[in-house]
Amino acid sequence: MKVTRRELIAGAAGAMALSQTARSEAQAPTDPSKVRGKPPRANGERAATAKVQRLVRGGTSSGTPHQDLMGTITPSDLHFERHHGGVPEIDPASYSLLIHGMVDRPTIFTLSDLKRFPSHSQIYFLECSGNLGRTAGPETTPGQLAGLTSTSEWTGVPLATLLREVGVHKNAKWLLAEGTDAAVLTRSVPIEKALDDALVAYGQNGEALRPEQGYPVRLFLPGWEGNASVKWLRRIDISDRPFMTREETSKYTEPFADGTSRMFSFRMDARSLITHPAFPTRLERGWVEISGIAWTGAGRIRRVEVSTDGGKTWASARLQEPVLPLAHTRFRHLWEFTGTETIIMSRAVDETGYVQPTRAELLKLRGPGTTGYHLNPITGWVVQADGRVIYKEEPWA
Amino acid sequence: MKVTRRELIAGAAGAMALSQTARSEAQAPTDPSKVRGKPPRANGERAATAKVQRLVRGGTSSGTPHQDLMGTITPSDLHFERHHGGVPEIDPASYSLLIHGMVDRPTIFTLSDLKRFPSHSQIYFLECSGNLGRTAGPETTPGQLAGLTSTSEWTGVPLATLLREVGVHKNAKWLLAEGTDAAVLTRSVPIEKALDDALVAYGQNGEALRPEQGYPVRLFLPGWEGNASVKWLRRIDISDRPFMTREETSKYTEPFADGTSRMFSFRMDARSLITHPAFPTRLERGWVEISGIAWTGAGRIRRVEVSTDGGKTWASARLQEPVLPLAHTRFRHLWEFTGTETIIMSRAVDETGYVQPTRAELLKLRGPGTTGYHLNPITGWVVQADGRVIYKEEPWA
Repeated sequence: MKVTRRELIAGAAGAMALSQTARSEAQAPTDPSKVRGKPPRANGERAATAKVQRLVRGGTSSGTPHQDLMGTITPSDLHFERHHGGVPEIDPASYSLLIHGMVDRPTIFTLSDLKRFPSHSQIYFLECSGNLGRTAGPETTPGQLAGLTSTSEWTGVPLATLLREVGVHKNAKWLLAEGTDAAVLTRSVPIEKALDDALVAYGQNGEALRPEQGYPVRLFLPGWEGNASVKWLRRIDISDRPFMTREETSKYTEPFADGTSRMFSFRMDARSLITHPAFPTRLERGWVEISGIAWTGAGRIRRVEVSTDGGKTWASARLQEPVLPLAHTRFRHLWEFTGTETIIMSRAVDETGYVQPTRAELLKLRGPGTTGYHLNPITGWVVQADGRVIYKEEPWA
Repeated sequence: MKVTRRELIAGAAGAMALSQTARSEAQAPTDPSKVRGKPPRANGERAATAKVQRLVRGGTSSGTPHQDLMGTITPSDLHFERHHGGVPEIDPASYSLLIHGMVDRPTIFTLSDLKRFPSHSQIYFLECSGNLGRTAGPETTPGQLAGLTSTSEWTGVPLATLLREVGVHKNAKWLLAEGTDAAVLTRSVPIEKALDDALVAYGQNGEALRPEQGYPVRLFLPGWEGNASVKWLRRIDISDRPFMTREETSKYTEPFADGTSRMFSFRMDARSLITHPAFPTRLERGWVEISGIAWTGAGRIRRVEVSTDGGKTWASARLQEPVLPLAHTRFRHLWEFTGTETIIMSRAVDETGYVQPTRAELLKLRGPGTTGYHLNPITGWVVQADGRVIYKEEPWA
């Protein structure tokens, strides 16, 4: 708002007086500069007026509240969680990882053994392959829709280093990763990925993993479906063939329209999501920065296009630099909301040229028997004439 | 540790049996995979065995515990804090920022006004210019020594955008930034910095600023001494000269050996610090990854050199990629500890060619009247024959 010279008479005093008239909640002191503040503390806490939480869904997951976040880093206590047998409690002093099977030297590594090896840190996204929540109709938030993806800086020892250490046989092709949770989750992973960028991770955003992220140690497979990044990792068995576990036969296989099926569909496809404005925001007329996140398991996001007219025309959004591979990329696009109802949407294009599809395109490709996994459709938000923003599924017209 | 085939008989069962014999604390279940784990929660918490805290010092600061951290991102609740009048409580609904002085349109911005402008997010370090703690002798941790620096992803509106909005006069040269804390902290900032990369920041690591970081809004001057990045920002006054506030006359002026003094010594010089091994670590013999952080207010770290023989010889450490400008850079160097006492140290070289000095070099430059500000000497850690690691100040011989 603009102010006149008269309103400003005493500079800051004027500002304080103005803000006092606008005061709505009386919890904070009227003039905070007249009151001694709080002392330092061992662990900071969020402001009472800026609490933010994950959305807990049943007994097996919680999602990142994208509508409340900005930038790209997800605070660790807001990183999504997904588990099949709850979050186990593991004593780090007795933790161990066994690597055996087609190796010269079967070895058990303690946590301190793992930390003696050269480490690697990198900012990566993680996404559950089932990251398309059942929507709650118009009142669906970005977190409800796609809260099962988050970005952290992960630290650990490259799995390739450990495999050299144990002497993996030349004809090894797959490994089994096994967790210590009540589900004893197991997944088969191709040895190529293990030798490429897989991490045996013990750190997240500078500190130890959080319990729900696999404390003290998890597998981390950059760009791949979260389920394969086995948490609470206790065993790696090396073999010349996949292990065909329950997780990859009954659950994570996708039938396609052409009659084929896709097993071991590890890589997450490119996707984007507008996180503001979205439900439950209510827009005022005027300029607004449309903002969201985009990511791809194929590497870097090349471009994000935004439409503010229901998909008729598209413009390239600004991407937050540096665009890191296999990490959430923040995109931004300035738009003037004039009070006319419209639909806003975004679509990601990754460095391979892959274009995020519409739901119709996805369903055509995947066929009537499609599972709920690996779905990455364009999301549309209706901005109503009164500024209310609601979710609307395709078809939008 | 290596295991024999017999010890492995039952694969994972063998591993579990071995780890059970090694168990020291009995709090976690003996076999976590036999117990249903904990349900998901709205906010994650650290594992009971991985608590980590800031070091609170008096009533005015707390430091980041670098000895407990890895990678580059500092979790927000471990970001250092420093204040002169405590942490104020500010109601975001009545928050406002006044920009006035040599401008065409004096303006008051509410928090939601600020959020309507195009935003910018970037990973930056912040450092207090007094970041060389009084040491506690040999038992000094990296956090005690240099805990007043941290790295976060900051989000806000470029100050340049706001200055365009209010129409800064051509002959404006400086601005005054004023905080809402009980100290009513004020600092003068050259207009060039304001138009370059200064942010009016409202976000940290994806969410709202923490109270001790300036909630709801702070100034953020990348690469400059923390004190100038005024928190709880309520007023910016534009002028054609500096304001000569108490903070920049009585306190933050540095005399030099040649009789000159340095005022407005904003930029932080290059520095590095080994964070592992350091006190209170006790090393076992064998390979260890020496690891630490390096940073510079001049841009990017070009090189970090590590010495494991008390400074006689130096080797280039690996730098964590990508090396971001004005952010902590993690460096790593593999070293074999054979049980012979030695001193390990690191020195940073930044993209301008500036080399982090020894304490002797610093004191020679700064002279006998030196203040405690802007000191960035090389840090040495003595690794004793028994593996104990302690702090030792120069001279090391």
